[in-house]
Amino acid sequence: MASNNPTSPDSTRRSERSRRAIYDAALALVVEIGYPKTTIEGIAARAGVGKQTIYRWWGSKADVLLEAFLDLSEQAARAVPREREEGAGREGREEQEGREGQESQGIPDTGDLAADLRLVLRATVDELRDPRFEAPSRALAAEGLVNEELGRRFVATLLEPQLQLYVDRLRSAQEAGQVRPDVDPRIALELFVSPLAQRWLQYTGPITHAYTDTLVDYALNGLAPR
Amino acid sequence: MASNNPTSPDSTRRSERSRRAIYDAALALVVEIGYPKTTIEGIAARAGVGKQTIYRWWGSKADVLLEAFLDLSEQAARAVPREREEGAGREGREEQEGREGQESQGIPDTGDLAADLRLVLRATVDELRDPRFEAPSRALAAEGLVNEELGRRFVATLLEPQLQLYVDRLRSAQEAGQVRPDVDPRIALELFVSPLAQRWLQYTGPITHAYTDTLVDYALNGLAPR
Repeated sequence: MASNNPTSPDSTRRSERSRRAIYDAALALVVEIGYPKTTIEGIAARAGVGKQTIYRWWGSKADVLLEAFLDLSEQAARAVPREREEGAGREGREEQEGREGQESQGIPDTGDLAADLRLVLRATVDELRDPRFEAPSRALAAEGLVNEELGRRFVATLLEPQLQLYVDRLRSAQEAGQVRPDVDPRIALELFVSPLAQRWLQYTGPITHAYTDTLVDYALNGLAPR
Repeated sequence: MASNNPTSPDSTRRSERSRRAIYDAALALVVEIGYPKTTIEGIAARAGVGKQTIYRWWGSKADVLLEAFLDLSEQAARAVPREREEGAGREGREEQEGREGQESQGIPDTGDLAADLRLVLRATVDELRDPRFEAPSRALAAEGLVNEELGRRFVATLLEPQLQLYVDRLRSAQEAGQVRPDVDPRIALELFVSPLAQRWLQYTGPITHAYTDTLVDYALNGLAPR
């Protein structure tokens, strides 16, 4: 989708340059003037390309933004220091490497599930508060609520690959006997991921590290007395 | 906001009739043609009132829809059989009666927290799948994501009053020794409410009674082995 099957190295380079300029323009405009006022025309003007160049590769501004945001997330993932990998020696790690999303290197596995979850959720809090991520991801989430097709694509390409990293980490915790064997990891992860998502999406409460630490405690240990 | 300070019983009746016609028109249009295509003009035409009548009382179509949906929720709450009240004799019940929202009679308190939560969440699943509720509440939630002021009003008038009913029920469970005393009920409720909200809002997974039953189990008993 992001390639027009160029026939020479030169046109490949030109296409790649245009594609990146279009991504940058789309992300910058959504941050600066908001998603509703962002148009294909505006993106083209700012990227210094013709409107037709955009229409040749994408069907709508939502499509452009979704791909631009995916690309931003991949860049962010590549920028994450490799130290996070250390101490994580379990199987299936390689398999994750190819996945998209800003946590494509997987959730750390130090053997302490609570500590690992706290770390990842705190990083997510920081990211959700970063305007470079907030504006485009909020715009895509909002558009996805009323445009079911885009919503499902947003979830499939951006959200679900990240959720699968929690599935992997919870499975590993199950193998280590730290999570009940009858627990379905795909549902279990929602106990700490969804509350954060809802507070962020719907402004239902403040988002802090103390808050996500509390979610991890409640989810792992339960609300009922032991 | 819903009254123009009428001076006679006759004009009060006329105002009330117009207000209700406008609510019905707004809700019907959102179900039939979707929120983006619903306009003040369209609502006025269908309600058989002048555009100015709407503009005199409301500032935008989002305002009309928010009030119409609040009214729909209150009607639904009044229609709930009173039997749900039986067996619930704890303090603070009267205080809840005046609250808005479709569960303004409170969450049942049979003494079995898990059973009570399962019941209420199953009813919520049914409601989220009811097109009469789904179309307007999804439209309001989506608008609230990009319109922070409306989003906060949606949460304050519709969502938070419902969440407070969970706070009350969890407090009562704490008093009965069924929930850890150090748990913050306002955060704890998010462990089962937010996952359902996110699946519904973002199409991240199917919504069933079995799913919400599982959330209640995981939240109360925790993911870690006992």
